[in-house]
Amino acid sequence: MAHIVTAFDEDLVQVQARISEMGGLCEELLSKSLECVQARDTDLARVVIERDRALDLMEVALEESVVKVIALRQPVAADLRVLIAAMKIASTLERIGDLSKNIAKRAIPLSAATHGRVTTSIVRMGRQTLVQLSDVLNAHAARDVDLAVQIWNQDYEIDEMYNAIFREVVTYMVEDSRLIGMGAQLMFIAKNLERIGDHTTHIAEMVYYIVRGKPIGEERPKGEPAGVDFIRA
Amino acid sequence: MAHIVTAFDEDLVQVQARISEMGGLCEELLSKSLECVQARDTDLARVVIERDRALDLMEVALEESVVKVIALRQPVAADLRVLIAAMKIASTLERIGDLSKNIAKRAIPLSAATHGRVTTSIVRMGRQTLVQLSDVLNAHAARDVDLAVQIWNQDYEIDEMYNAIFREVVTYMVEDSRLIGMGAQLMFIAKNLERIGDHTTHIAEMVYYIVRGKPIGEERPKGEPAGVDFIRA
Repeated sequence: MAHIVTAFDEDLVQVQARISEMGGLCEELLSKSLECVQARDTDLARVVIERDRALDLMEVALEESVVKVIALRQPVAADLRVLIAAMKIASTLERIGDLSKNIAKRAIPLSAATHGRVTTSIVRMGRQTLVQLSDVLNAHAARDVDLAVQIWNQDYEIDEMYNAIFREVVTYMVEDSRLIGMGAQLMFIAKNLERIGDHTTHIAEMVYYIVRGKPIGEERPKGEPAGVDFIRA
Repeated sequence: MAHIVTAFDEDLVQVQARISEMGGLCEELLSKSLECVQARDTDLARVVIERDRALDLMEVALEESVVKVIALRQPVAADLRVLIAAMKIASTLERIGDLSKNIAKRAIPLSAATHGRVTTSIVRMGRQTLVQLSDVLNAHAARDVDLAVQIWNQDYEIDEMYNAIFREVVTYMVEDSRLIGMGAQLMFIAKNLERIGDHTTHIAEMVYYIVRGKPIGEERPKGEPAGVDFIRA
């Protein structure tokens, strides 16, 4: 049976490699979409939109490979859990790519206009989101539960940034009605980043689940940090 | 082996029953969230928010049961495909529930204000979304590929309604800056409905995949119907 175990281990390594590859592309898409917003770079936006297709194909390929591994190796318990989680993480990464693409798309109409202060807030929020995404990919690769819990606890920071940006944008829209169309785009960009933060948190939950074999805990209140006791419970 | 086949068939029936139950609750949540928007009913909004938790628990239960069935019965090919699809559909339904809950939440601050015409457009869009959701649940239960393809082709209608509402809301915001805060809420409600439409389309894709064993086709252009030739290709 040693041969089968080794083959399965190789399968898992391959699945992990696919996740890492998808994660790397996701980081690239998010980072480039923020550049689009900052530099109002419409050519780069088109690159992001095009590159997102590669991510979609990677998800399909990962899913097919996981289904094949399940069918061939018929894993149970922890091994099955890792494979199911891999499929869910791939689906989450695909959504993050979609949201990044959407940010890049929304940067195109922005390019004619300028509103520096909100843009700066949004890009700052985006950079924080990108850090969380990179961290959670590292947590997944290293099966690092402590890092996963830390990321899970930090999502409220992104929520708070989103709330502040929302108020800021409404203020500008009220002051100058010519900014309403652009303001709506900026709100959706901020909302997309907030959702990327949520998805990152979901990946952190899956890392916890893979390692500990149980869910991270009940949903914590939005916009405030969960107590550590609550998580460890 | 007849015993094992029968037991597996029973498992599939149970999984299907869970999907139907989740789907029913999703329809209820979406329908009630539209009532919240229409009647500005904050008590009902709180009911929706509370009920969504039941949907989350149903998803966890379904996922656990699917993992158990895979581990116990070790299905391959079409059977494995059905189970994987069930898990993805459950995850999609959970997201639809989340979006409905979010609509109900956003209806609470709306309740102090009124803006009848946009509300009517949004509720109309919501009713169309609800019809698509009910149809896709029927298509799934009956493994009806033709209905799934039809739903898949109709998503552009919801996209067009969304675009019209977006423009309408911006117009009101420009005319009267006191409506900006409320307008932003209405935009997000419409956006949530558009996303529910997208999720419904994903379920239609999964129905196609379950029955035909291959994806429904490449992504069609947004905001316009795909040609039937394109889908059949």
